[in-house]
Amino acid sequence: MIPLRISLEPEEIPSHWYNVVADLVNPPAPPLAPDGNPVTPEQMGAIFPMPILEQEMSAERWIAIPEEVRQIYALWRPSPLCRALRLEQALGTPAKIFYKYEGVSPAGSHKPNSAVPQAFYNKMVGTKRLTTETGAGQWGSSIAFAGQMFGLPVRVFMVKVSYEQKPFRRSMMQTWGAEVFASPTNLTNAGRAALAADPDNQGSLGLAISEAVEEAAGDPGTCYTLGSVLNHVLLHQTVIGLEAKKAFDKIGLYPDVIFGPCGGGSSFGGIAFPFLADKAAGDKRAANLRCVAVEPTSCPTLTKGAYAYDYGDVSGYTPIMRMYTLGHDFMPPGIHAGGLRYHGDSPLVSQLLHEGQIEALAVPQVATFEAGVQFARAEGIIPAPESCHGIRAAIDEALRCKVTGEAKTILFNLTGHGHFDMASYDRFLSGKLEDYEYPAEAIAESLKHLPKVD
Amino acid sequence: MIPLRISLEPEEIPSHWYNVVADLVNPPAPPLAPDGNPVTPEQMGAIFPMPILEQEMSAERWIAIPEEVRQIYALWRPSPLCRALRLEQALGTPAKIFYKYEGVSPAGSHKPNSAVPQAFYNKMVGTKRLTTETGAGQWGSSIAFAGQMFGLPVRVFMVKVSYEQKPFRRSMMQTWGAEVFASPTNLTNAGRAALAADPDNQGSLGLAISEAVEEAAGDPGTCYTLGSVLNHVLLHQTVIGLEAKKAFDKIGLYPDVIFGPCGGGSSFGGIAFPFLADKAAGDKRAANLRCVAVEPTSCPTLTKGAYAYDYGDVSGYTPIMRMYTLGHDFMPPGIHAGGLRYHGDSPLVSQLLHEGQIEALAVPQVATFEAGVQFARAEGIIPAPESCHGIRAAIDEALRCKVTGEAKTILFNLTGHGHFDMASYDRFLSGKLEDYEYPAEAIAESLKHLPKVD
Repeated sequence: MIPLRISLEPEEIPSHWYNVVADLVNPPAPPLAPDGNPVTPEQMGAIFPMPILEQEMSAERWIAIPEEVRQIYALWRPSPLCRALRLEQALGTPAKIFYKYEGVSPAGSHKPNSAVPQAFYNKMVGTKRLTTETGAGQWGSSIAFAGQMFGLPVRVFMVKVSYEQKPFRRSMMQTWGAEVFASPTNLTNAGRAALAADPDNQGSLGLAISEAVEEAAGDPGTCYTLGSVLNHVLLHQTVIGLEAKKAFDKIGLYPDVIFGPCGGGSSFGGIAFPFLADKAAGDKRAANLRCVAVEPTSCPTLTKGAYAYDYGDVSGYTPIMRMYTLGHDFMPPGIHAGGLRYHGDSPLVSQLLHEGQIEALAVPQVATFEAGVQFARAEGIIPAPESCHGIRAAIDEALRCKVTGEAKTILFNLTGHGHFDMASYDRFLSGKLEDYEYPAEAIAESLKHLPKVD
Repeated sequence: MIPLRISLEPEEIPSHWYNVVADLVNPPAPPLAPDGNPVTPEQMGAIFPMPILEQEMSAERWIAIPEEVRQIYALWRPSPLCRALRLEQALGTPAKIFYKYEGVSPAGSHKPNSAVPQAFYNKMVGTKRLTTETGAGQWGSSIAFAGQMFGLPVRVFMVKVSYEQKPFRRSMMQTWGAEVFASPTNLTNAGRAALAADPDNQGSLGLAISEAVEEAAGDPGTCYTLGSVLNHVLLHQTVIGLEAKKAFDKIGLYPDVIFGPCGGGSSFGGIAFPFLADKAAGDKRAANLRCVAVEPTSCPTLTKGAYAYDYGDVSGYTPIMRMYTLGHDFMPPGIHAGGLRYHGDSPLVSQLLHEGQIEALAVPQVATFEAGVQFARAEGIIPAPESCHGIRAAIDEALRCKVTGEAKTILFNLTGHGHFDMASYDRFLSGKLEDYEYPAEAIAESLKHLPKVD
């Protein structure tokens, strides 16, 4: 009899993160500066501390998790691996469905897994202050929490429209002691320019990034933090998959297929990469393992984008990176897409997809909420909208198993609870949520503006 | 070295609830009907199913938890017992502080511990539908979840002003499939009368209770559920303290003092009663144990109320019960009091206090939020405002230990997370929250209206 929850002891928190770079078929394509040359550590050092840059560039397979980080992880980790037995029964599937539940963190999502080490390394090298941007506030609240754990002040540039319409995560950041400003602000050149052009500017994530990066670049004591996309963020998130593997070992099972929601790549990479390590090492259990990144049809980066060099931000402020992209001037539709609205994707996830190591799948919005409600009614937990993308894919796989009779073991990353997202559930339940497929012509148009690289 | 979190295995979920009635010094005072005679099971049977009534009346020390209930509990239980080591260090206290964290449940609080068995027993005896009332929605969401787990429709009468101003828990209830109506409604006599008198009536908890009870009383297939105060609710909540005892056994410690927030008594009783069992059994470890119920100074039932027979509701609809009360027409102030705004209290908690088995303490509102923020900044978790009352008392005890040098073991019940309560934190952080002490004259006045009992 498989237990409904497989818990690990605090001392079973992994001692090392797994770096998938060590197992890539080809070396990763380097980020490039505007002049076309690889970005130097000195250039990046203006906004990131050296230990983070070393991780960003590292090809070491295993990187030790500092004891100070493990102690903070222990406030909520190891997170549980749960069997969705009631969901299986509701679906009538022979498949076994498991989820790794990251909503038990203080911020309610998986984001603190990287926020904590980012704050730690910054504290270690003497950084005096952290900046970041946030939209609805999931990353901002995670770095506010993490900064507080190491006594490091945090300044968050929060997109103005969210600051005003979604005050709860703002209060959360302030409870943890962070300064939160509605972006655009008068604190930066980028903000002042935007306000000069339009005093009523409601802000955008791209503009908030520009403000946070500008502040970090202009002050040696200030560093910038980012919650997804970059290699070091995905590295930190592998604690999810590593714990999942330990839990599966305890019950003598191994997944046949893994689903992770995918916006910038941190939740997918976090759960899937450690299993790819087994595949690379020739572990027979992983020989036929499928890892599937699940994205919204409204922002179909991996399934409809180009694999090309592009800017990481909207305004062309960052280095260019090789990744799947819809073009940096892709404008995600105003409708809700579960936080997964980034024009690009993690370069590591992108390369793995390009090399055929993983798969990608796009799911429409209404169907993801249907899956989320079905999950909540079977398993109790109300999932974050991002998480619903993985649930949709897991349910569809389980239903295929019902047809074929296969008793597959399915794993998905339940990245967070939806307690801050009930307004989205409300729109879904009242029939106001609509599907949206980003038009192929619009993608083709924005892809014309990719930066030129030799 | 004591671990930061002591986790139990799913099979360690207690097999029985503990009924403190078995260990009372005197038999409990029976609830009385308006005619002054004890309420009969037949009278109560109009709104409660027989298995619940049996538990309400039972004097058995241990009552088996049905396997079906334990299976639902296993979706999130056993909940962790955590050591607040970072808080201890921040306070510089020699005391050891532990908290039992109930915010890991799907509804984010301890309330499902009773909602699940209430739904189960109703389903077992063929109840077709459940009704309840809810204010901000904590109990309503818990019974919505529990009803869904057993396929039992749930109708919630939600106080209109909360329905309109706090839509998130409403959406949560609807996500779990419950019907939610803004009370007063046109569905009941009580509601229609209220609307006839004032079409803009914003509702009250007392009125919502009347609507939910009226529906249950008028339909043999419908039963009523309540989230606190009554004996069976406190019985179900003892799963918290029973798990805490098992966890303490694993680390060879035993608490010297236990704090639980106290409104209707379910969170205090849940954590404290199982330790009182040890005391009653002559366990030497419990010889000097102190159990302290912590309430707000704005609703000081246990510390300023009378121990007397009173109605359970505002409108005098329920049987009268012997308990500490501020008078059933006590009108709690409009300011926030962390959900602990009930005029009365659990008859069991009241009797234990009256007999000197436990203590009570009232704390002012601003100080509870100060404690909540201090806790969040040390331990990460942002506590529900109710929970902050227990935290305030625990911190004060730890600070006393700092003076005396005593290395006491302190335990409190962290009943839920504050993710739905960030507006209250916002008011606190912006200096808009004020203390309020309910005036002695007002209490004396409302106590004049207690029902007469021979």
